[in-house]
Amino acid sequence: MVHKKADTPRKITAGILQFRPVFKDIDANLKAIKKYLGRRKFDLAVLPELATTGYNFTDRNDAWEVAENKKGQSFGFFEELSVKTGGAIVWGMAERAGKKLYNSAVLTTPEGDHHIYRKTHLFFRESEIFDPGNTGFKVFKWRGLRLGVMICFDWIFPESARTLALKKAQIICHPSNLVMRFCQDAMVTRSIENGVFCMTSNRIGTENNGISSLTFTGRSQITDTKGNRILSFNRSDKSFRVVKLQPELSDTKKVNSYNNIITDRRVGYYKA
Amino acid sequence: MVHKKADTPRKITAGILQFRPVFKDIDANLKAIKKYLGRRKFDLAVLPELATTGYNFTDRNDAWEVAENKKGQSFGFFEELSVKTGGAIVWGMAERAGKKLYNSAVLTTPEGDHHIYRKTHLFFRESEIFDPGNTGFKVFKWRGLRLGVMICFDWIFPESARTLALKKAQIICHPSNLVMRFCQDAMVTRSIENGVFCMTSNRIGTENNGISSLTFTGRSQITDTKGNRILSFNRSDKSFRVVKLQPELSDTKKVNSYNNIITDRRVGYYKA
Repeated sequence: MVHKKADTPRKITAGILQFRPVFKDIDANLKAIKKYLGRRKFDLAVLPELATTGYNFTDRNDAWEVAENKKGQSFGFFEELSVKTGGAIVWGMAERAGKKLYNSAVLTTPEGDHHIYRKTHLFFRESEIFDPGNTGFKVFKWRGLRLGVMICFDWIFPESARTLALKKAQIICHPSNLVMRFCQDAMVTRSIENGVFCMTSNRIGTENNGISSLTFTGRSQITDTKGNRILSFNRSDKSFRVVKLQPELSDTKKVNSYNNIITDRRVGYYKA
Repeated sequence: MVHKKADTPRKITAGILQFRPVFKDIDANLKAIKKYLGRRKFDLAVLPELATTGYNFTDRNDAWEVAENKKGQSFGFFEELSVKTGGAIVWGMAERAGKKLYNSAVLTTPEGDHHIYRKTHLFFRESEIFDPGNTGFKVFKWRGLRLGVMICFDWIFPESARTLALKKAQIICHPSNLVMRFCQDAMVTRSIENGVFCMTSNRIGTENNGISSLTFTGRSQITDTKGNRILSFNRSDKSFRVVKLQPELSDTKKVNSYNNIITDRRVGYYKA
């Protein structure tokens, strides 16, 4: 983390990983993640949804087999990786919690904290596999940053990013496994309408579970508070790439000298 | 209006006008509008924000001079035009109401009804000129259609289109005078996230009031319920163009066999 100097707005190094997880092979995926991130230095990294397991489970039992809780290997792995790289890491995983099974994203910090967000809006067949998330949209504070997390299909509900922005998130970390074509453009809108950075880490590749096949769209991206793409991947890139960004830019919600997109809201007129 | 037959979803002819109003010359603007629309047949037409007056007023008094109420010539003009063309027309105007001055859009029907929406979110210097709208977002029913209206900068607040969609608008009529570059892409997102048609009618040209100059971005468009642009103008087109669209498509909010973007909302988690 670059320390803030007087009159020098702090910049952080933020990165996203785009890769192709191996279906239901946690060992292979952690190994790949270590290869991509292990020798890098960054402040914040965002990995895809279900990065440790792959996505296309045939049913709930299929996902249960590779689901983990804090005693599982992935939590320890990311704690070590976070210490080694110096940065916080947001990674998607299948989470066991008692008899519940969640599509979760964990924010792991070098201090050894694990903050969990459980996907609020399940997509397509996920509702047959996972329980609906029960954490709500959370903003995690870490070293002066305010980090919001949402997962993949949460994007289509404007309330997801809006809730995070109203809770003062500066950066929305957005682990994804996208199969539709709309999200990347919509995240530009999410950045503009909320004045936040958005980091969408998407996977690539086709995953065939023997019954159905899904192809993921890549095009991971980071958008700034004005909706500019300051980092973007193509449909096949496999890499971890970083960019410098200034989180404090999200603290002003002014779009011009008259308008503030948060305080100009007229909430009394939003009742349907 | 095409009548509905059994098993034949109804299509309507919907159009948008992109042109360059003459600043503070209502006569000239009504004449131009009549030239563009007068010999056409359509079910629904959307015109730009402040289509009758132009936009770049120096101050409130400047706008007051050309503001009208229902006794003004524009209401009668659009009533006649609506009868002649057979369609409803949404047109932007500066509205006097007692001592209040609103940036309004009127939905005028061939039956002679005028439904008024007053802009909720004023942009830039507009707050020095107009009073903030007090109607809220309304859905007007006409011949089986449910038409929502919002004006220009309302776009940046996702709550505007969301409120209209939750009030069951099928088509969002969006008179605009856009000067920023983001809205047209954002309206694609508005269509997708709400499953509605959006008709953004924007003006073109540069308007210099002797103090400041504004250039408007054109690129008027109609997006369908899946976010496809089914009609789009360039930055300089001056014309009224129509497309056939099927309003009932907005009545299903399914994005796949599992997800419904309205009923899947988890409102309890949207509290900031």
